[in-house]
Amino acid sequence: MTHLKNDTFLRALLRQPTEYTPVWMMRQAGRYLPEYNATRKRAGSFLNLCKSPELATEVTLQPLARFPLDAAILFSDILTVPDAMGLGLYFAEGEGPKFERPLREEWEIRDLAVTDPSGNLKYVIDAVSSIRKALDGSVPLIGFSGSPWTLATYMVEGQGGTDFLTIKKMAYARPDLLHHILDVTAQSVILYLNAQIEAGAQAVMIFDSWGGALSHAAYKEFSLRYMQQIVDGLIKEREGRRVPSIVFTKGGGLWLEAMADIGADALGLDWTVDIGEARRRVGDKVALQGNFDPAILLSTPEAIERETAAILASYGNGNGHVFNLGHGITQHTPPENAAAMIEAVHKLSRQYHI
Amino acid sequence: MTHLKNDTFLRALLRQPTEYTPVWMMRQAGRYLPEYNATRKRAGSFLNLCKSPELATEVTLQPLARFPLDAAILFSDILTVPDAMGLGLYFAEGEGPKFERPLREEWEIRDLAVTDPSGNLKYVIDAVSSIRKALDGSVPLIGFSGSPWTLATYMVEGQGGTDFLTIKKMAYARPDLLHHILDVTAQSVILYLNAQIEAGAQAVMIFDSWGGALSHAAYKEFSLRYMQQIVDGLIKEREGRRVPSIVFTKGGGLWLEAMADIGADALGLDWTVDIGEARRRVGDKVALQGNFDPAILLSTPEAIERETAAILASYGNGNGHVFNLGHGITQHTPPENAAAMIEAVHKLSRQYHI
Repeated sequence: MTHLKNDTFLRALLRQPTEYTPVWMMRQAGRYLPEYNATRKRAGSFLNLCKSPELATEVTLQPLARFPLDAAILFSDILTVPDAMGLGLYFAEGEGPKFERPLREEWEIRDLAVTDPSGNLKYVIDAVSSIRKALDGSVPLIGFSGSPWTLATYMVEGQGGTDFLTIKKMAYARPDLLHHILDVTAQSVILYLNAQIEAGAQAVMIFDSWGGALSHAAYKEFSLRYMQQIVDGLIKEREGRRVPSIVFTKGGGLWLEAMADIGADALGLDWTVDIGEARRRVGDKVALQGNFDPAILLSTPEAIERETAAILASYGNGNGHVFNLGHGITQHTPPENAAAMIEAVHKLSRQYHI
Repeated sequence: MTHLKNDTFLRALLRQPTEYTPVWMMRQAGRYLPEYNATRKRAGSFLNLCKSPELATEVTLQPLARFPLDAAILFSDILTVPDAMGLGLYFAEGEGPKFERPLREEWEIRDLAVTDPSGNLKYVIDAVSSIRKALDGSVPLIGFSGSPWTLATYMVEGQGGTDFLTIKKMAYARPDLLHHILDVTAQSVILYLNAQIEAGAQAVMIFDSWGGALSHAAYKEFSLRYMQQIVDGLIKEREGRRVPSIVFTKGGGLWLEAMADIGADALGLDWTVDIGEARRRVGDKVALQGNFDPAILLSTPEAIERETAAILASYGNGNGHVFNLGHGITQHTPPENAAAMIEAVHKLSRQYHI
């Protein structure tokens, strides 16, 4: 087993004893950090930054130099897999990610092929190796991917955050086509995450950003089922250590019982769920990660400490909690407010780990 | 008690026996209907349409002429109250509603005053009287308002559907200011809805479109509490008949137990909740309204009938269900697909009302 100076995060994901509640932040390497903006400016664009293993390593480590975080997460984008499939990812200034060639015709869908990560995704795998080396055993490295449903929303709609009318029409009128997209994508994600694990990722997370747009029944059929396929196909142990998996459906608070049954080690929670209630609902099947509303980081250190305390108290005594935001940190966050939250987690959580 | 040819909707809201499950559609007078688009074109703009009692009556009745719906809903906008408060509602082409003068300074918030509906909101009250007369006792008329939290999001952010960072920052850093906005707004909404009831509305609905953006604790403090204040202040009986109230928080499926306790007669559900599970959770405290994903109306009549059947079966035997969409009908809906859903509800629900 390779040595890790701080493996609190990995132990918490496996619901093993820890001395305090570990913490990291979704999108912790991001635009709220001036040093990130400087590197991004040097890179020329967000995509250049993702595609350079050297610069991706640099920005991955920036928040760790500032804050005593308990984990690092690969700097990359959730949409790398469909980009590698040839759909043409691009970022229009001031807008979210888009695809140049969304899937619209039946033949385009039938032609979709599983992507080998050693091809068009080699830059991500190289970044994982490089970051792992740079971390030098300080904290664990998290690899990640978008969920098949979430990737498919972008692949079919061409962009995110819409009413999902095109893909939902497909889901109800031509479920066979959508299942084909989801299956090919799930197979690709398995290869992709396993390549990240082999390159040094010590935990993996699946981001299902848009699963919450589905009905309860459609969520199980079109999103959860394919995350289960991925979890089933993941490498479970590496370097003598379990490689834990985290599944996060934003807006999925109603479906935690079903999510807890797919074999993942932990569930990510957004802030709409009371984490204590979530813990009672999932029992000891999974660890929980979350669930601080990132908007609170725009308020005051006093409010931040109070709301941090409320989440820790709601989770209560014992193991199995990784503190995190309920969604990515916003670009408007003063870094000192993020520092206040992290300090509060470390300070206030010890009482629950005696 | 004034005579109603079809009071199925009102009986269902009070969980009284009905012969079938009544159905209406949120935004049933809308852009998916060519006749609506013709009237809107004549009006010149959406706001002109809202502000003309005559044209509002015309479009309110259009879907009833086409479909055997069990209720009519006042044609208006959820943002009429803050507009009457002087914030300057406008609609930029292709975008959602916005306010010219959002609340940003403390003095602007302190100056906010309760709105008398007989002043700047007279056009809505006149529309209610006019529609009620035109309906001529065929089906009940629903009045409505936005919830205080939802209105406040537009009043503070200046627009909807954002990350709500400005208002959430206020919620955590200056809760006193936000509570003042919410209290003045709630008082205004009570007067507004009661004026609608006195003008002829036979049920009222509170639309909390953005409550689902809050954490569980913040939802109770900043949204639910003020909906309770409104429900407490509503006229309960009129023309010898109970005036039922419906509370709908989009994305509020996690909080149904708390919502069922505020004294409303019914809860609206979006499509993320299984309606049978929702019924088990709220028991016999409230009726339930929902919860068909409007995106399904873009698919095929076969899929529409199948999904309608699934919702009816999930709710199961007995009273207390009003069939509806889980959100407003989309402008891309073929009217014949809406007809297929309505027909399926009426045909397939009789077996559950024996």
